[in-house]
Amino acid sequence: MGHNLFEKIISTHLVKGEMAAGKEIGIRIDQTLTQESLGAMAYLQFEALKIPKVKTKLSVAYCDHLLSQYGPANADVHRYHETVTDKYGIVFSKPGNGICHQVHLERFSCPGQTLIGGDSHTVTSGAAGMVAIGVGGLDVALAMGGSPFFMTYPKVKKVVLRGKLKTWVTAKDVILEVLKKLTTKGNVGTVLEYGGDGIAHLTVPERSTIANMGAETGVTTSIFPSDEMTRKFFIAQDREEQWQELLPDADAKYDEVIEIDLAAIEPNVALPHSPDKVVTVKEAGEVVVDQVLIGSCTNSSYLDLMMVAEMLKGRKVHPHVSFGVVPGSRQVMSMIAKNGALSYILESGARILETGCNFCVGQGQSPQTAGVSVRTNNRNFVGRSGTQDGKVYLTSPLVAVATALTGKLTDPRELGIEYPEIHLPEKYAIDDSLILFPTGKKEIYRSEIIGTPPYNTEMPTELKSEVAIKVGNMINTDDIIPGGQAMNYRANVPKSCEFIFQFVDSKFPKNCKDIVAKGKTPVIVGGESYGQGSSREHAAVCPMYMGVRTLIAISIERIHKANLINFGILPLKFADAADYSKIEQGDELVIDDIYKSIYLDKITVRNITKGTSFTTVNETTQRQRDIILKGGLLNYTIAQ
Amino acid sequence: MGHNLFEKIISTHLVKGEMAAGKEIGIRIDQTLTQESLGAMAYLQFEALKIPKVKTKLSVAYCDHLLSQYGPANADVHRYHETVTDKYGIVFSKPGNGICHQVHLERFSCPGQTLIGGDSHTVTSGAAGMVAIGVGGLDVALAMGGSPFFMTYPKVKKVVLRGKLKTWVTAKDVILEVLKKLTTKGNVGTVLEYGGDGIAHLTVPERSTIANMGAETGVTTSIFPSDEMTRKFFIAQDREEQWQELLPDADAKYDEVIEIDLAAIEPNVALPHSPDKVVTVKEAGEVVVDQVLIGSCTNSSYLDLMMVAEMLKGRKVHPHVSFGVVPGSRQVMSMIAKNGALSYILESGARILETGCNFCVGQGQSPQTAGVSVRTNNRNFVGRSGTQDGKVYLTSPLVAVATALTGKLTDPRELGIEYPEIHLPEKYAIDDSLILFPTGKKEIYRSEIIGTPPYNTEMPTELKSEVAIKVGNMINTDDIIPGGQAMNYRANVPKSCEFIFQFVDSKFPKNCKDIVAKGKTPVIVGGESYGQGSSREHAAVCPMYMGVRTLIAISIERIHKANLINFGILPLKFADAADYSKIEQGDELVIDDIYKSIYLDKITVRNITKGTSFTTVNETTQRQRDIILKGGLLNYTIAQ
Repeated sequence: MGHNLFEKIISTHLVKGEMAAGKEIGIRIDQTLTQESLGAMAYLQFEALKIPKVKTKLSVAYCDHLLSQYGPANADVHRYHETVTDKYGIVFSKPGNGICHQVHLERFSCPGQTLIGGDSHTVTSGAAGMVAIGVGGLDVALAMGGSPFFMTYPKVKKVVLRGKLKTWVTAKDVILEVLKKLTTKGNVGTVLEYGGDGIAHLTVPERSTIANMGAETGVTTSIFPSDEMTRKFFIAQDREEQWQELLPDADAKYDEVIEIDLAAIEPNVALPHSPDKVVTVKEAGEVVVDQVLIGSCTNSSYLDLMMVAEMLKGRKVHPHVSFGVVPGSRQVMSMIAKNGALSYILESGARILETGCNFCVGQGQSPQTAGVSVRTNNRNFVGRSGTQDGKVYLTSPLVAVATALTGKLTDPRELGIEYPEIHLPEKYAIDDSLILFPTGKKEIYRSEIIGTPPYNTEMPTELKSEVAIKVGNMINTDDIIPGGQAMNYRANVPKSCEFIFQFVDSKFPKNCKDIVAKGKTPVIVGGESYGQGSSREHAAVCPMYMGVRTLIAISIERIHKANLINFGILPLKFADAADYSKIEQGDELVIDDIYKSIYLDKITVRNITKGTSFTTVNETTQRQRDIILKGGLLNYTIAQ
Repeated sequence: MGHNLFEKIISTHLVKGEMAAGKEIGIRIDQTLTQESLGAMAYLQFEALKIPKVKTKLSVAYCDHLLSQYGPANADVHRYHETVTDKYGIVFSKPGNGICHQVHLERFSCPGQTLIGGDSHTVTSGAAGMVAIGVGGLDVALAMGGSPFFMTYPKVKKVVLRGKLKTWVTAKDVILEVLKKLTTKGNVGTVLEYGGDGIAHLTVPERSTIANMGAETGVTTSIFPSDEMTRKFFIAQDREEQWQELLPDADAKYDEVIEIDLAAIEPNVALPHSPDKVVTVKEAGEVVVDQVLIGSCTNSSYLDLMMVAEMLKGRKVHPHVSFGVVPGSRQVMSMIAKNGALSYILESGARILETGCNFCVGQGQSPQTAGVSVRTNNRNFVGRSGTQDGKVYLTSPLVAVATALTGKLTDPRELGIEYPEIHLPEKYAIDDSLILFPTGKKEIYRSEIIGTPPYNTEMPTELKSEVAIKVGNMINTDDIIPGGQAMNYRANVPKSCEFIFQFVDSKFPKNCKDIVAKGKTPVIVGGESYGQGSSREHAAVCPMYMGVRTLIAISIERIHKANLINFGILPLKFADAADYSKIEQGDELVIDDIYKSIYLDKITVRNITKGTSFTTVNETTQRQRDIILKGGLLNYTIAQ
């Protein structure tokens, strides 16, 4: 029987377990990556392992999230990264070199290899035939130490792309179409494998847009075959020797097959406040906009910005619109600076912002109060823009440009201008001079901003708890710990704790303190899809530091669930979703004999306050249960 | 008897008073400018005047300070500017168009005219033969309303530049030499008029660097003749019709003459933490640096960046250094993008930051904890970089590049590379599409961030006070109200008050509250050169809002003193500096019969707590005394 692409890569990396959907497997990790909002904590944890040098084929630390540098915190984190990577054999991509996923795809992706990264959009490199998965920073630390990465073997869904996109319709519109079909819910434990005759027309940068924003569906990852198109990309990046062909067998099996007719797709838009609220731009009706932003790891490749430049050439943006462009990498910026495209963008009236993540992670460019912003990035959750009542629409760069020119959400075909036909360059401009390769120097930079890795204690024998907060459905990791200024302090856990649930219920930190003072442990109660969005490990680290031992929700997203386990928090699901409504903040909950009951698939929770009890589902593996009792993966690994 | 240049311009604008040093004069203002950290308050005050349209020849509102947009505050302020300017006949330069002083020099400066601006570096346009003065926002509001601008007629010092600069020595080294001679103290009430055979070799952008940083000496302004060199600049900016020749008479009189031999100047550096701590780069010894930043209104012209690019061409910055470049205006950015220079800068490893003020006003790019930063801007006060223990060195762009390449403070001649000979372009690239000219639309954008103009009440008849804070020498306006995040709230006075003396004594706001609650008025006691640095009107507005009625210091800087008066705060100097040491925080002070004693040149202050009394010098004019009693200039003007 033939194998699909995902099976082929996993089978050559399998260390433990059985490749059957729902079973836990351990795989060897070839590459890791981090960005610095999570990286400092990952490297502190790696230091705690006391291993002299990373054991992966390649580990890269990027600085792309924290570039504004208000106060010394960001620069301290950069310098810590520069020195810790130098000591431990990690490659360091300096601030200014670009967005991790864009640079990794360009310079380090490798068909057939495995990559985990401390950022949910690590999946971008799936465009180059890698198994690339977004994880928590602790997973990265352990993989760098040579430990296998453990995950639940997923279902593999084939997405068959048929035909060819019309002009003015882009890869972004494809992934928005996928989001419309799959939504952001119910895709945990699934991998999307792209195929069909349609992919032959999609370049690697276009595939990367699709793979990247697969993250928003909640799937484990997305993967494209490594084919002739991939080879062309590797030749253009002067890395042909790292290319290999990698295709699924003709008779490969899939758990499900979805077909998408590319020719039927229209320019799409995700309406506020979810990436799956997708309609066509025409269906969206009249939307007057205040701001248009082009950039992010989803849409800031050379191809994207060349199309943008061609559309803008000789035209001026609408006077009311604040129009910002963030090139995705130094390679992209250099090339468009050299070939004159940057001038077209500039002359149109664009603000050229520093290469990096910028607005996509709430690092600036917040729209005005209640402002309307059209953006090419991947998430439009409430408040993620930094403006709590802002309204963010997600589109392709072509729709974004049309919108910037007219001042309202516009299908670019309405402009009546020539289609910007752009081709993959034969050679990209290669300049890795902002990438520092490790030299093994010993001294690591420290400062007050750089904290220590947070250790947890073992699970207490008696688990008396109290509900510290009860939240609704679709709580994402931005709700749990926001971006913006809060992101400056990610290397310091006590400081980060001040921001937990800041915009949901700012009393949460105090509630936890009060509960712990009473000798109890705080519990978080969540609704559906708890923990979606960014991988944002601090959404687990901080609650752990604040004494949380249990989360009970209707459903829990994959990366966040793994993070909770890594930090010794037991993730439970209501067996009957109706029980969610019978529980309140302040309720005292008890799980009897936790050291025994944790090994059960169903755990009874007694609500002392209400005098009732309810059943929860414990979807953790044997190994994960051991980890939770030890107080998390770091303790567990050191103990071994 | 012949006239100097300053006299010539003032005499054609004189509305009131006598042109004699120390006398108050009122002059007609042709042009005004603002930047948005101060502008919102200026325009709110203009609105309070209820005048339908500005009465100046030209008023321009720039957005250059608050471009990072963390949260909606900045974008709200931008939108308020866009709409209030449109209604009242003011020109609006959008965010992204560049630094106000750079753009104003390029596009609006006009020899022979008067310009006041709500920013201390407004003096930059003195390079084009204007009388350009940095003032408070309220002065701008009133000038827009057609009121004369009142000032003390200054002494005019001639600075005779002889000979020619050596290669590798720049205009920045000239002004650092001037700062070494004049220091930052004791130059209040002085104007510097440049002349001598040496100026024939200095282009307008070079002259602008010199005029710009004259602000750091504390002089009222600096002015250059409008000569053939000026004409060339105006031709290159496609504005020849706005040029006129304007030279001092051969037998012009000056209060003092300083001679500087240009050929004797070496590459200079201002050491931390004052712009007048100037030594040659060689004298500074070994200084290992963490960061190098090129930009600001002092040094980010086309000429500056072209020299930077030529030096960087084919070279790489030191791996340890974070190297940022901020083009001063969209014109500069467009031209270097088009001619390939930007590529050289990028390929060297530079981070290209958004065109604007950025690091120079504490808006990002703070160095690491205790980090060393070499910068081309104008101020290096403690903490202004955003890092309280950071050490900032001020140099020319050429020294900055040499330093970025070697990783330590370096005289560029040590590099042994070819001198980057750059000439003024025959034509600048003209594109004013981010400048919006007013259309007279009526609707003004408002939001919670946009406060109301703060009104003061009349002076109480009995002035019982208590010392709320006693500070040391050289307290600058950054110490009084910091930049950084605090700057986001400048349009909202109550919010801004939370930041007053934040890093000097964070208890100040509470002290004021307590004193006011006791029915007394808070007093600030200062040392020498109180209020130097940025014009920063909020350093007066906020204390006024907090109830302060009196400041007593050993000496007070010009712009700040004017701001204090504008907001109804009486600025007094110790008659005997020794009395400074006899006063403490918490002392109760009384000025008897303030409505009479304010008209005296010496006022007795009784220290009730100590049982003593001391004499203060009241250096205010009759008109200013009336203003203070009315509770400030806005009340005074409306009453008239």
